[in-house]
Amino acid sequence: MVFVSRREHFNAAHRLYNPQWSDQRNEEVFGRCANSNWHGHNFELIVTVKGKPAPDTGFVFDMKKMGELIKENIIDKVDHKNLNVDVPFMQGKLASCENLIIEFWNILAPEIKRVNPSSDLHSLKLYETPNNFVEYFG
Amino acid sequence: MVFVSRREHFNAAHRLYNPQWSDQRNEEVFGRCANSNWHGHNFELIVTVKGKPAPDTGFVFDMKKMGELIKENIIDKVDHKNLNVDVPFMQGKLASCENLIIEFWNILAPEIKRVNPSSDLHSLKLYETPNNFVEYFG
Amino acid sequence: MVFVSRREHFNAAHRLYNPQWSDQRNEEVFGRCANSNWHGHNFELIVTVKGKPAPDTGFVFDMKKMGELIKENIIDKVDHKNLNVDVPFMQGKLASCENLIIEFWNILAPEIKRVNPSSDLHSLKLYETPNNFVEYFG
Amino acid sequence: MVFVSRREHFNAAHRLYNPQWSDQRNEEVFGRCANSNWHGHNFELIVTVKGKPAPDTGFVFDMKKMGELIKENIIDKVDHKNLNVDVPFMQGKLASCENLIIEFWNILAPEIKRVNPSSDLHSLKLYETPNNFVEYFG
Amino acid sequence: MVFVSRREHFNAAHRLYNPQWSDQRNEEVFGRCANSNWHGHNFELIVTVKGKPAPDTGFVFDMKKMGELIKENIIDKVDHKNLNVDVPFMQGKLASCENLIIEFWNILAPEIKRVNPSSDLHSLKLYETPNNFVEYFG
Amino acid sequence: MVFVSRREHFNAAHRLYNPQWSDQRNEEVFGRCANSNWHGHNFELIVTVKGKPAPDTGFVFDMKKMGELIKENIIDKVDHKNLNVDVPFMQGKLASCENLIIEFWNILAPEIKRVNPSSDLHSLKLYETPNNFVEYFG
Repeated sequence: MVFVSRREHFNAAHRLYNPQWSDQRNEEVFGRCANSNWHGHNFELIVTVKGKPAPDTGFVFDMKKMGELIKENIIDKVDHKNLNVDVPFMQGKLASCENLIIEFWNILAPEIKRVNPSSDLHSLKLYETPNNFVEYFG
Repeated sequence: MVFVSRREHFNAAHRLYNPQWSDQRNEEVFGRCANSNWHGHNFELIVTVKGKPAPDTGFVFDMKKMGELIKENIIDKVDHKNLNVDVPFMQGKLASCENLIIEFWNILAPEIKRVNPSSDLHSLKLYETPNNFVEYFG
Repeated sequence: MVFVSRREHFNAAHRLYNPQWSDQRNEEVFGRCANSNWHGHNFELIVTVKGKPAPDTGFVFDMKKMGELIKENIIDKVDHKNLNVDVPFMQGKLASCENLIIEFWNILAPEIKRVNPSSDLHSLKLYETPNNFVEYFG
Repeated sequence: MVFVSRREHFNAAHRLYNPQWSDQRNEEVFGRCANSNWHGHNFELIVTVKGKPAPDTGFVFDMKKMGELIKENIIDKVDHKNLNVDVPFMQGKLASCENLIIEFWNILAPEIKRVNPSSDLHSLKLYETPNNFVEYFG
Repeated sequence: MVFVSRREHFNAAHRLYNPQWSDQRNEEVFGRCANSNWHGHNFELIVTVKGKPAPDTGFVFDMKKMGELIKENIIDKVDHKNLNVDVPFMQGKLASCENLIIEFWNILAPEIKRVNPSSDLHSLKLYETPNNFVEYFG
Repeated sequence: MVFVSRREHFNAAHRLYNPQWSDQRNEEVFGRCANSNWHGHNFELIVTVKGKPAPDTGFVFDMKKMGELIKENIIDKVDHKNLNVDVPFMQGKLASCENLIIEFWNILAPEIKRVNPSSDLHSLKLYETPNNFVEYFG
């Protein structure tokens, strides 16, 4: 079993905000991250897929196809977007990295399997900044 | 003459938008960067000051003071903010990195001189992403 | 289960030295790292905590609180310090990264649990240089 | 159990090419990576070894020795080489990162054990570019 | 005057070889870099253009256009290529970074001027590895 | 004229301390950097040399020779050393980066000229941390 990874990035706006709380409560919990006029990040996403290298290509998963698959299914939906407002799969959800990475998984896991049935999505890693990041294994 | 540099960062939302143009024209020129719901970045700012090292400290400029000066005068005004909406010195200006760095210079140059009169602001460098950045020498 | 990580850094001096050995033996084993006048590094510490995102915050662990917790319990005790001389929890221990990360774990694991009982410290990663680093899972 | 890692790098040429396929088929599958005149990369290899820190050194594995071991057994055989043509252990194998990392493992795992029997090779990570990398756990 | 920069990358093979010298002399001067089977790198190219920000866009040079211009004129001609064999503008020239960056300048300087006559190419920076790079100002 | 640069690194201990001041005054001015038990850094040094590429090598300066020259003249004297205590050319000088880089220049400038008389040392850049660095042009 070899693990192959592809890094992509996107730039997006978001805010941390719980609509069931008062603005004051949101600011107490989320601080500057609750700013009603938004802030944003250069996000980096690392997608890791596991499988056996195919004898005729030496590939677990064609990296070019993986890049396209990530772009179509994730990057095009979040890049230069507002994660709270513009992204259908984040509607009604708190725009934290934890919630974001779970939604990314739900979209990517079946796509990876569909494109290359002998491989599996192993993990996602999402950097909000070089200092803060989350990881998810399904 | 020695040049000393300090790196700081901030996370902000913005959009590229000329209010004298139609939305269609804005999208033609600025593409996804014109998204009306904003996007954002992890900006990095490098401030470079020049001068002679003081004999009693070995410093051109005390880096701890420079960090505080940048935070008070720049970072606190743009971090976790919307550059188009929340930042007084960007009012009425297109929120491009080029315009942003000129405003940063106008604020920082006299502050650097005031705190340490034997030094001068030499340059500012502002990374919007690791791939796109601007530099200004006054 | 989502894994959330926070990176912090500190600058410290240390030397590798076994007091039960002669100076010659120390130099044979540790080379330049045994220099009696010390050397030092910019250490980077990555703290990874696992848990379920809380429904009302979307957080596994509030990153701001995690940063403060790491600073109070680790960074304040090692930053701009001599790891062999100044750090109580390293007394009588060889100042290797391996020993350092085990002590960090012993301090941080109960603190993480105390501040957020529904989360657990998962791993620590400590970079001595970009080329040399250690990882510990308890 | 502590995990210690060492990063080394090498610069090499390669191409992705299956000799049982026509040139046209190779180009369809591998695209520009099949260029018959080769292309190349700055590869980065991270070797991770696990074990208990020795009481007299504080080391799981002496990093200086690990660097030398990686250089002698891997770097000297691939650095400034053509992975398809110059590297004995890649003869008859597709020069993908997946195949490369498996061969590296087969060479390094017994060497790590031989030099320090109380440690084990845990994983290899090989960056072809900052965006594409593979990992192997044996 | 503001300076705006765009980073692009390409992966290529090359060798350092003077055809007027014997193989032995080439190896004495260029060492492993003369390997007749080539080696390669992940090159990074930073293009810096200077000018005044346009009042209606806030741009010195549209970064999206600059990216396209660099890709069409440089990256497409060198990416996944052999710099000695595949690149017309390097024919008959030693494939050193110094010679490469001069050719890049000769191609890009008039293109930058043509696309945006109120701007000028200011400098090129070419990383062969993170440790070795060259810069050219025309 | 092409500018060629080489990056090297060293790990060292130091403290900021003016022996003509009281300990209290040193702590007021230098804060934690005055710690009498030292602290340390992973320093990075970038040496930039300018000249015309030689027709027979394509080189402004042989990078392998430049690496050796920097190691012999600088790195071997400061790596795994205490900058205040172990380094002859820093005796009697405040161990600030500003003073360090001036001494490096005084050593390297004539060496560069001696080894390759058709080239000149152009600049030195010294990173104390990724956030703090100094540059010197002689």
